[in-house]
Amino acid sequence: MAYKTDIEIAREAKKKPIQEIGAKLGIPSDDLLPFGHDKAKVSAEFIAAQRNKEDGKLILVTAINPTPAGEGKTTTTVGLGDGLNAIGKKAAICIREASLGPCFGMKGGAAGGGYAQVVPMEDMNLHFTGDFHAITSAHNLLSAMIDNHIYWGNELEIDQRRVVWRRVLDMNDRALRDIVTSLGGVSNGFPRQAGFDITVASEVMAILCLALDIDDLQKRLGDIIVAYRRDRTPVYCRDIKADGAMTVLLQQAMQPNIVQTLENNPAFVHGGPFANIAHGCNSVVATTTALKLADYVVTEAGFGADLGAEKFLNIKCRKAGIAPSVVVLVATVRAMKMNGGVAKADLGAENVDAVKNGCPNLGRHIENLKSFGVPVVVAINHFVTDTDAEVQAVKDFVASQGSEAILSKHWEFGSEGSKDLATRVAQIADADMASFAPIYPDEMPLFEKVETIAKRIYRADEVLADKKIRDQLKQWEEQGYGNLPVCMAKTQYSFSTDPNLRGAPVGHSVPVREVRLSAGAGFIVVICGEIMTMPGLPRIPSAEAICINDDGVIDGLF
Amino acid sequence: MAYKTDIEIAREAKKKPIQEIGAKLGIPSDDLLPFGHDKAKVSAEFIAAQRNKEDGKLILVTAINPTPAGEGKTTTTVGLGDGLNAIGKKAAICIREASLGPCFGMKGGAAGGGYAQVVPMEDMNLHFTGDFHAITSAHNLLSAMIDNHIYWGNELEIDQRRVVWRRVLDMNDRALRDIVTSLGGVSNGFPRQAGFDITVASEVMAILCLALDIDDLQKRLGDIIVAYRRDRTPVYCRDIKADGAMTVLLQQAMQPNIVQTLENNPAFVHGGPFANIAHGCNSVVATTTALKLADYVVTEAGFGADLGAEKFLNIKCRKAGIAPSVVVLVATVRAMKMNGGVAKADLGAENVDAVKNGCPNLGRHIENLKSFGVPVVVAINHFVTDTDAEVQAVKDFVASQGSEAILSKHWEFGSEGSKDLATRVAQIADADMASFAPIYPDEMPLFEKVETIAKRIYRADEVLADKKIRDQLKQWEEQGYGNLPVCMAKTQYSFSTDPNLRGAPVGHSVPVREVRLSAGAGFIVVICGEIMTMPGLPRIPSAEAICINDDGVIDGLF
Repeated sequence: MAYKTDIEIAREAKKKPIQEIGAKLGIPSDDLLPFGHDKAKVSAEFIAAQRNKEDGKLILVTAINPTPAGEGKTTTTVGLGDGLNAIGKKAAICIREASLGPCFGMKGGAAGGGYAQVVPMEDMNLHFTGDFHAITSAHNLLSAMIDNHIYWGNELEIDQRRVVWRRVLDMNDRALRDIVTSLGGVSNGFPRQAGFDITVASEVMAILCLALDIDDLQKRLGDIIVAYRRDRTPVYCRDIKADGAMTVLLQQAMQPNIVQTLENNPAFVHGGPFANIAHGCNSVVATTTALKLADYVVTEAGFGADLGAEKFLNIKCRKAGIAPSVVVLVATVRAMKMNGGVAKADLGAENVDAVKNGCPNLGRHIENLKSFGVPVVVAINHFVTDTDAEVQAVKDFVASQGSEAILSKHWEFGSEGSKDLATRVAQIADADMASFAPIYPDEMPLFEKVETIAKRIYRADEVLADKKIRDQLKQWEEQGYGNLPVCMAKTQYSFSTDPNLRGAPVGHSVPVREVRLSAGAGFIVVICGEIMTMPGLPRIPSAEAICINDDGVIDGLF
Repeated sequence: MAYKTDIEIAREAKKKPIQEIGAKLGIPSDDLLPFGHDKAKVSAEFIAAQRNKEDGKLILVTAINPTPAGEGKTTTTVGLGDGLNAIGKKAAICIREASLGPCFGMKGGAAGGGYAQVVPMEDMNLHFTGDFHAITSAHNLLSAMIDNHIYWGNELEIDQRRVVWRRVLDMNDRALRDIVTSLGGVSNGFPRQAGFDITVASEVMAILCLALDIDDLQKRLGDIIVAYRRDRTPVYCRDIKADGAMTVLLQQAMQPNIVQTLENNPAFVHGGPFANIAHGCNSVVATTTALKLADYVVTEAGFGADLGAEKFLNIKCRKAGIAPSVVVLVATVRAMKMNGGVAKADLGAENVDAVKNGCPNLGRHIENLKSFGVPVVVAINHFVTDTDAEVQAVKDFVASQGSEAILSKHWEFGSEGSKDLATRVAQIADADMASFAPIYPDEMPLFEKVETIAKRIYRADEVLADKKIRDQLKQWEEQGYGNLPVCMAKTQYSFSTDPNLRGAPVGHSVPVREVRLSAGAGFIVVICGEIMTMPGLPRIPSAEAICINDDGVIDGLF
């Protein structure tokens, strides 16, 4: 049987005007700022007016550690949202925006797949509503104003060797990782080492995703530490007087975007920090707005539950005062097989033993998630090649862990395929079984927070960090930043910091390479192992195949 | 008498939904891609369908050399367009988009002033419909793909010292003018000298503004020369295989934007190359589309007539096959006084002699414009402090040059103030008096083209250029680029290359510092004197005062 490709299905979508989609959530047309006929931003005034309404139930979708086989976290988020709507619930989904850079490198976007997709797919993988461009502009305005301040006399006495604010582009460009700027003589300033990160790694991105409203946004932008003086005292964005103009640049980007699923259900798509180098969740504004407008809100956190869900629960929930009623952990038979040692080329053949061998990775995520006090349901995202015996093996394993696994066929059938999952998830959410708490308190010392995550989530024996790093953490505690959560930057492919260590490893060490204070976002970034904040392009970038074809349609983007 | 500020007037605008504005030109709602309720892009399909319609009359607005007093070229363009509509003509205006970078430096945007403005002003000075962000992305994708090609083995044998494609940001950031990239070791590539220009200086900007349609856009992008080999043969964008993906990134940006004047008349705002470092006109697509939809199209070219109008007539008209029926040359009494030696602080006092002394600058522009075979009308953009005697002095001078000067009070009264100007301009346009021709033929050698402009427009005695530069021009002629027009990059403040030489200088020399081949845009850039392609921020950037005020409104942007 031949299946249609994602893009073929997306192109056949019968989209409704975005005003009709907004109306499903009670948003009047005047409060929707349209971007074309199928995208809109929700006005800040409307959002503010919902403040006293009761919240719906929050459902977090997370996954096992990703494998090249693909797990389908976004697909499941979309499928579950459509399923909830299909069984008569008022539901909305909240996902992240795609980053432009990687689209021209190796991967397509993050709009789901099969019959569980969000549209318009092309726009979402290109400029969308311009949010990331606004973040790039705001970030780089601050960068320019710092060097400009130094150029005109450096009244703030910035130590030019200790400028910690880099520049950003939404592009995979390894040549910009490490650069020397201001060459060429007097009129170009003072040469110094500098560099670019990808926009999704910007602290401005994290701030936009964590800010409660525009005032909170400006306050947090002002709190950004951009440099240090020779005496090590910090220089803030506020000192450079860039926070006002940055807020103006971000005003529109702060308004969450609404689009639709293939089944014409509302989808918020807003913010897009990576989960390996940032906190990896869509914006607090989008999630809290959706909670006011829908009875069930399905949202996802990036990569595996060791990264995205940990940060969703310890950072986003803590900061936004929200909590999930249930967590859906996505797994696939194929990914279990890969965790069980099968090569990608051999995934087509039935192999129940390999499935069983791969299950411990799933088991550990279940255990970890439960330690936050939330009920966990496993969603088996069905591939058409999965055999009944393989599916049963996963179900049996999950049952042995005291949880429940539900097969879901949203990829193949849309909401028809996800009704079972939706029904069970709604039941659990309605039962109010969760007693959520982050796994470390605010007042725990910073290094202990890192150890808590490393030992309780990654199951490492120890955290390795130079004295310099420990001293840095202590210094920040003395400066009043000790109550911040930690944002782990680590490979997504393993519980450990070694991407090749699949399954459920124990006895490993977590080496901390660097720590960065994101005083505006409100967390400490802890960089473990070799994680890049500016990716490169592969030998044959996907950009080479991207074009407008003879029918005037975009090819190669997916 | 107290006058309202531009921004106060703009905030009181009674905007109509953009669909109503489009309807005035016969554009159906379905062919308008909305960006909010007051901005839209016109669909490519609709534009293509107008192809066989007859063109309206094209009216070019240009100006004397700019002074700190301000001339009001955009204001006059808007006022004339509103005036034409007020006297019962079907008219549209075509202007350029504002660049973000300079808005945070010294100047506000370019949306007119007083009662002759285009709205929404804030959006137009910020992200607008994202066109410049798309250009930045497309430009930098090519940059990343060039370094990536070298990184992965350099199959095209690019000489790393001869990569001529830089990077761009829409930001005034002098620290990025001259940089060294790819430092930090093997995984970051091969260190080399590089740098950033401001986005408006990008060849991609020029290409977007000169391309006839999306196919022409891709062809021109492919033609960009990005580097040379050791044997000096060129490497094209097409060789890097970036042209397809760049076209996809620019697809939406190619569609012209439509907004409205304070009097709810249609305004196309599209493209924004600077007139001192690029060709300085709005897009060919916007102008030719407007000509199909309106009976009169008023458009402007950047800075003084020696730069913007020269390039409009020699480059844009030549490439697009269009010609103005009449040219409106904007002058102000204040600017005449400054040209006549009065300091800015003393402009308030009547000084007829200074006005007379400043008139030769105006006279030379009239003479130059007439040499293109087009009728010229001088519009005196009225300031409330101008005295009757001063105005009369300008009128008398213009009459002595065989032309006509008309006082226009659009700034103070909107179309009520510009009806005289509109009536006379329409009469001249209808009389079909123009017999337009560029001042040099395609087949003239490149250096002679430069000499022709320098001698006939700038009135210089000679062009100074090293043998190296002359040899370079000859080489391009041998490679088949000899038929291209030349795009002069020169200070806007003087006919000469010395910004302090006001009035109508003679006997000066034009030193050519550098020549660049823009094979995609289709011209040779000739850089004369000290012109920067990446500006810096001033000591106190205007960004410091930009913020959202307590009423939720943007302050400081203008």
